[in-house]
Amino acid sequence: MTKQLKAEIIAVGTELLLGQISNTNAQWLSQQLSMCGINVYSHAVVGDNLKRVEETFLQAHHRSDIIIVTGGLGPTEDDMTREAFQLVSNLKIQEDGPSMEKINAYFEKQGTVMTQNNRRQARVFEGAEVLANTRGMAPGMIVKHQDKVWIFLPGVPREMKHMTTDKVLPYLKKMISKEMTIKSKVLKSIGIGESRLEYELSDMIHTQTNPTIAPLAQDDGVVIRLTAKESSEDKVNDLLGQTEAQIRDKIGDYLYGTNDETIEHKVLSMLKARNKRIAAAESLTGGMFTAKLIAVEGASQVCSGGVICYDTKVKQDVLGVSTNTIQSKGTVSEACALEMAAKVRERLGADIGISFTGVAGPESIEGQPSGTVYIAICTDEERKVEKYSFQGDRNSNRKRATLKGFELLFNYMKQ
Amino acid sequence: MTKQLKAEIIAVGTELLLGQISNTNAQWLSQQLSMCGINVYSHAVVGDNLKRVEETFLQAHHRSDIIIVTGGLGPTEDDMTREAFQLVSNLKIQEDGPSMEKINAYFEKQGTVMTQNNRRQARVFEGAEVLANTRGMAPGMIVKHQDKVWIFLPGVPREMKHMTTDKVLPYLKKMISKEMTIKSKVLKSIGIGESRLEYELSDMIHTQTNPTIAPLAQDDGVVIRLTAKESSEDKVNDLLGQTEAQIRDKIGDYLYGTNDETIEHKVLSMLKARNKRIAAAESLTGGMFTAKLIAVEGASQVCSGGVICYDTKVKQDVLGVSTNTIQSKGTVSEACALEMAAKVRERLGADIGISFTGVAGPESIEGQPSGTVYIAICTDEERKVEKYSFQGDRNSNRKRATLKGFELLFNYMKQ
Repeated sequence: MTKQLKAEIIAVGTELLLGQISNTNAQWLSQQLSMCGINVYSHAVVGDNLKRVEETFLQAHHRSDIIIVTGGLGPTEDDMTREAFQLVSNLKIQEDGPSMEKINAYFEKQGTVMTQNNRRQARVFEGAEVLANTRGMAPGMIVKHQDKVWIFLPGVPREMKHMTTDKVLPYLKKMISKEMTIKSKVLKSIGIGESRLEYELSDMIHTQTNPTIAPLAQDDGVVIRLTAKESSEDKVNDLLGQTEAQIRDKIGDYLYGTNDETIEHKVLSMLKARNKRIAAAESLTGGMFTAKLIAVEGASQVCSGGVICYDTKVKQDVLGVSTNTIQSKGTVSEACALEMAAKVRERLGADIGISFTGVAGPESIEGQPSGTVYIAICTDEERKVEKYSFQGDRNSNRKRATLKGFELLFNYMKQ
Repeated sequence: MTKQLKAEIIAVGTELLLGQISNTNAQWLSQQLSMCGINVYSHAVVGDNLKRVEETFLQAHHRSDIIIVTGGLGPTEDDMTREAFQLVSNLKIQEDGPSMEKINAYFEKQGTVMTQNNRRQARVFEGAEVLANTRGMAPGMIVKHQDKVWIFLPGVPREMKHMTTDKVLPYLKKMISKEMTIKSKVLKSIGIGESRLEYELSDMIHTQTNPTIAPLAQDDGVVIRLTAKESSEDKVNDLLGQTEAQIRDKIGDYLYGTNDETIEHKVLSMLKARNKRIAAAESLTGGMFTAKLIAVEGASQVCSGGVICYDTKVKQDVLGVSTNTIQSKGTVSEACALEMAAKVRERLGADIGISFTGVAGPESIEGQPSGTVYIAICTDEERKVEKYSFQGDRNSNRKRATLKGFELLFNYMKQ
């Protein structure tokens, strides 16, 4: 067994204390450490003040085994993470050659003269493992000091995340258990609520400890994180595979992807695999569905575009929904949704037409309450329409409708 | 002069240390305190562990004047904020009648039996000022203990924010300066960068202390926060008005609104005031512009919808852009953008047509680099087109193009 290590995360930066930015770094790092089986015992945020940073560092050194510090490594006088840690550790600071070369190269490429304060960013502690910054200038560092491990990372989330994934997590995994391999896998679901999912998996969640099974509700569906520890990569993969298979037995119908895959990625790749093009007729969603699909690289291969028929006249004149349907059934109706899907498919020459019509709110439309939404799908072989009654405000209703559209497409194509 | 008070914010909850949620409460509270002229010296997050919460509270009691605690007031055994503060303060805990009545009423209304642990939520410290929770069950508290002010708030952001706005901020404002009125106003700009804005206002920013002038770059433009202190409401309004007028003299052209107003709200209300309808032809933005406009209540009065002409064929067949334009100039061109704007206006019967065409990236199109974007506006009186070269990734280019569209409309209509 490995000793239970205590970690803490310290963010340095007055902008956080002014509320100008949120400390998303602490959340992300906590997730990563938790997946490695390392417990985080506290987060702290301290301003750009040498004495207060020093005090925070001293306290951390006394109570934690692993201390991760984000921010305060930049070029200005306000950046004083190194100075504060020097007061705590008495370690020498020196210029790192490769980091300085990178900074010089950056300014040369920009064609601008480097101001001298940029040299400050290349300074590292003697004996530190220097972590190259592939997304910015200031390098990170891993410093062992009196049996404690200090990890210094840039405050810019993009730079911090790359450095953590590339260097810090492999280092920590190796450190916490020389004979153990720890690995996580995230299963992503759509169309099943958190409580229902927990109910279906309750036996496994409550009895199984390797891998652990942790469900978590997110905006776009419930994710299930599996974390396994074993003596080899092969064994850990076996264990994850077995548990994943058990979960798929119970709720496989709701699982669409793993790890970072999103439902729009999944739908896009299903469309590609089937060589199908899609077009959307969007009323209450107002372009939100298509904008989300087009956000994925390679969307042009499968998405023609769509018609945002917010106005009834646009449903008629541009899309070609019949006046009869609109007058007899209304725009918020099964019939109108089906016709919108069929017409957008036809007009844009797509294989699949999808439509969204409903009442975003807060006002009701045609006597239908806010949250009433119809979504239809039309293809060569099938025409189907679903009705929903969402309970949210205007924009949560629009977002839920968009997500339901992706869910319907996923369910339709996986058949 | 008032004494400079030190505040700190402590969040209690293991879910924060697991990274399941982000500590957005600390950011929001910091903004609010900063607007009252109170400096926040640290944020801390601690898990649901009695000893560690107690240690964190003890440290806070020694170093700060105002301590705000969020979370740990709920019904379960994990909620131990009260118990930890009792260890620090030795204050008695008692049940608050009105809070208990509210909790009972809640369960009666739901038609469910209250489990006994819900009583825990009604417990308050003897002598505390009880803060009714208008959005949930657990009340908040303001407790004066040994010259320090402790403020306990629920962890649910919605409940915490209402309680803070209704009760805590008025209390703090009164406390920090009995004869002073403090008021903030935010001026919102678009189309001017942060460094240029700071340059234009540098004299004022560096010399003026009442009101203070704080620029802050946000995703949708730079905002300027003015915070004034005076002996009466009238005087504070005068002071804010004078400074706002000075700022408008210098950069008034870029200011579109105040406080919570967004650029899409502003554009919507300008369209309403002018009784104009708009329609959009969106290629690279893929519906993002229209989705953002329709997010605002009342959009149906001014927005007809649009055509998402992502595919070249849709530009031709649905919108009616001429084959000649596309073949001779390309789809990423001034000519195509102008024709898209004119055609969408005509086809949807709108007063204003706006179009977006360009290269979202990462691949180049028609030899044009990623980030090249044309936006055109077409009305009865005017046809104009602008070219941009954005430097971001796929989705930041799409977002910047969308924002530029709103900026162009604002500039066009304010003439």
